[in-house]
Amino acid sequence: MPEAEIGLIGLGVMGANLALNIAEKGNTIAVFNRTTEKTRDFYDNAGDLAERIVPCETIEDFIQAIRPPRPVIVMVKAGDPVDEQIEHLKPLLGDNDILIDAGNANFRDTMRRFETLKDTSLTFIGMGVSGGEEGARHGPSIMVGGTQDAYARVEEVLTSISAKFDGEPCCARLGTDGAGHFVKTIHNGIEYADMQMIAEVYGILRDGFAMAPKEIGKVFEKWNTGRLDSYLIEITAKVLAADDAKSGEPMVDMILDRAGQKGTGRWAVIESQMMGIPATGIEAAVAARSLSAMKEERERAEELFGLPDNRAMADEDREKVIDALEQALLAGKIGAYAQGFAVMAGASREFGWNLHMPTIAKIWRAGCIIRSVFLDEIASAFDETPDAANLIVTPKFAEMVKETDGALRHVVATATSAGLPVPALASALGYFDSYRRARGTANLIQAQRDFFGAHGFQRVDDPTDGQHGPWGGTA
Amino acid sequence: MPEAEIGLIGLGVMGANLALNIAEKGNTIAVFNRTTEKTRDFYDNAGDLAERIVPCETIEDFIQAIRPPRPVIVMVKAGDPVDEQIEHLKPLLGDNDILIDAGNANFRDTMRRFETLKDTSLTFIGMGVSGGEEGARHGPSIMVGGTQDAYARVEEVLTSISAKFDGEPCCARLGTDGAGHFVKTIHNGIEYADMQMIAEVYGILRDGFAMAPKEIGKVFEKWNTGRLDSYLIEITAKVLAADDAKSGEPMVDMILDRAGQKGTGRWAVIESQMMGIPATGIEAAVAARSLSAMKEERERAEELFGLPDNRAMADEDREKVIDALEQALLAGKIGAYAQGFAVMAGASREFGWNLHMPTIAKIWRAGCIIRSVFLDEIASAFDETPDAANLIVTPKFAEMVKETDGALRHVVATATSAGLPVPALASALGYFDSYRRARGTANLIQAQRDFFGAHGFQRVDDPTDGQHGPWGGTA
Repeated sequence: MPEAEIGLIGLGVMGANLALNIAEKGNTIAVFNRTTEKTRDFYDNAGDLAERIVPCETIEDFIQAIRPPRPVIVMVKAGDPVDEQIEHLKPLLGDNDILIDAGNANFRDTMRRFETLKDTSLTFIGMGVSGGEEGARHGPSIMVGGTQDAYARVEEVLTSISAKFDGEPCCARLGTDGAGHFVKTIHNGIEYADMQMIAEVYGILRDGFAMAPKEIGKVFEKWNTGRLDSYLIEITAKVLAADDAKSGEPMVDMILDRAGQKGTGRWAVIESQMMGIPATGIEAAVAARSLSAMKEERERAEELFGLPDNRAMADEDREKVIDALEQALLAGKIGAYAQGFAVMAGASREFGWNLHMPTIAKIWRAGCIIRSVFLDEIASAFDETPDAANLIVTPKFAEMVKETDGALRHVVATATSAGLPVPALASALGYFDSYRRARGTANLIQAQRDFFGAHGFQRVDDPTDGQHGPWGGTA
Repeated sequence: MPEAEIGLIGLGVMGANLALNIAEKGNTIAVFNRTTEKTRDFYDNAGDLAERIVPCETIEDFIQAIRPPRPVIVMVKAGDPVDEQIEHLKPLLGDNDILIDAGNANFRDTMRRFETLKDTSLTFIGMGVSGGEEGARHGPSIMVGGTQDAYARVEEVLTSISAKFDGEPCCARLGTDGAGHFVKTIHNGIEYADMQMIAEVYGILRDGFAMAPKEIGKVFEKWNTGRLDSYLIEITAKVLAADDAKSGEPMVDMILDRAGQKGTGRWAVIESQMMGIPATGIEAAVAARSLSAMKEERERAEELFGLPDNRAMADEDREKVIDALEQALLAGKIGAYAQGFAVMAGASREFGWNLHMPTIAKIWRAGCIIRSVFLDEIASAFDETPDAANLIVTPKFAEMVKETDGALRHVVATATSAGLPVPALASALGYFDSYRRARGTANLIQAQRDFFGAHGFQRVDDPTDGQHGPWGGTA
């Protein structure tokens, strides 16, 4: 009689930690890795949890070790390796076994895999997992895409390993097929925007006031006790406080300013673009990472153009600016999160997922990288007004915008004047200022388009499409 | 003996005008349209040019009317209709006939069509045409993708119908396969950004100073005699001067502020994202159009948040602001065009097109929508420094940036403070301020990523990848 209730393939950091988490919650888990040594190391280092781990050296042994119907979590590199695993497993798995892709898949790949597997007896689940190493080990946020039946069969184990917020598991089935991986992609996009806005605030304090990392860290530490209370603010305070053992310098000063990206931010932008829903905060953040990678170009440009000195804002009252920055960061977050949720609402319509915004906000309150008090506020705002067209116009957030947009405006104007880049913060303000304006300036764009391309326009007093101006646009 | 030297399928506005242009330049052209009536109407209205037009009612007659090897221009709606036309024509066309897709194809479709046709005797060309109706009729800018041999066979007719700048034809083969349609896509993306920045300036004058359309038109008219001299500024002055016959009001005031988009702006963004090259100006412009389409949401948001009054900038010296706006628009254009050219340089590397930037700038100087004196300056800047990493760092443009970035900074700060949205102008400033900073803030982002995901970083004193901080990030 096979002893494991579940299996996991792929013992990289995330997979290994997830497996330990699963074992710790009382489940017996079979594990397999292509490199057998990794499987042995993992088992040898599992301590007390080893008694609930079944290390397998062949994929056949692995399958045999799991009680049917078998839930098998695949945690390998996103892309081709997932397809290879599926091809490998297909002939070995039996009726009603469930294959769970827990990697950072592009949801379009997940959609394709659902399509490919739909006429087989295999059940597929696409599952987004956020929380980094720590989350995987002690409780991630889990975003599931798949049928209700499939979810029912793994719900217990998944909720047991997920993070909890006030006792509620941060795990939910969000919709069919690609829903889980899509929501994870937008989570990551928002994470990009959030991190970029924090970096911009750090830049203002570092380059506008010549503040040292530890001083800046104290500012973040303080903010973490207020409305900005969140994992990202917490770790920002920590990394700013840390020293480099080798040089004795503050650690952040020894780190190259060249940010990597693994693609989820970019995917979030591309999907928003395809639906025509603005996600300018994520766009600004992705662009900032791309610009950071152009290190040599930036070095040459600085030689050419010079820089404002690193006390560019010294004339401003520092404590006042710091207070404004706290408000501005909150306002900026509102913009970025409002965009992210609007993109998910669009995808829900487009793919028929019926995504429930309060649920998404709730399962992001703990476990994941963007976990925060703020997400609890989003959850209750959407709970109160489930049909809100945009987070910004929910009563709760409308008040927050009114309280904080002045500070954001002040920060963007001041930093801009001082030559300090604030693209993500500025994007939030541009979004808000465009969104709250009933009469924008696109009438001029329509006039131009009609002038040169006879594209036609609507009149304000007549909704018929394709009317033309007196400039001779007559297609 | 067939009399036509060339054929054209698809007599929509663009196709019909292109056909008349071809006939006018002394070529005999066979034309065909699925709806025969359109072909007849076209012929009946061709005036003197009818003698060089061979109207065909069947596709077989059309083919027979052209002398082999036949160049056949297809000017139908982009997407499936192009594939259908190709399937239709394939069995009818003979060895060495050339099929030219002159529509607004996504270059990835063009790449696929090249691939599909590569083992047939048919030659394919993907050709971007810009200039709207007028351009098609009297001289567009023509961007060709295909082999040198194929181009040699149609060069004469294409250069004869193209726009001329100081006698030089605005037509060139830019690279193989999708190069022409790719460059056209970026052209359109830049056009989006340029139009959006003009709309933002219009918004500042309208909503910041309560200026009337005709007053604003005079400002643009004056600018059109200076460094901003361009087709878009010229037509902006014209549309702002025009009155609506029906209401007697200024025409622009009667046009709904809801801009359409046909997809090329979005494609430009998606391709930039896929290459990781910032195109924030185009992103801001696409987002602005998307926001303009959310008319009802904007109306409700204005009710909720209110607006600054329409003299929000009345405290500023209007003439001074107008002078700053001229400079700011120039600085904004530099940012948007620099990004567009950087994206093309990236694509050239990625697809092996060997795009020649001076040539692209040159063929955009006349005929197309973004034609301008400015593009002549870009052409000479790239001519002088063909290996420049970015337009901004060419000596000519570095000087222009130094002259104008202060004005852009002032405009963005002032408009931002006044609650007027300037997302595209702000994006140019953010780009410049990030690009000219050797030490950015991505070190903090790398620290965060290492903290939560053990992603690793490089140290400033050691280029080895994947080092970790003292916070325990040890993947």
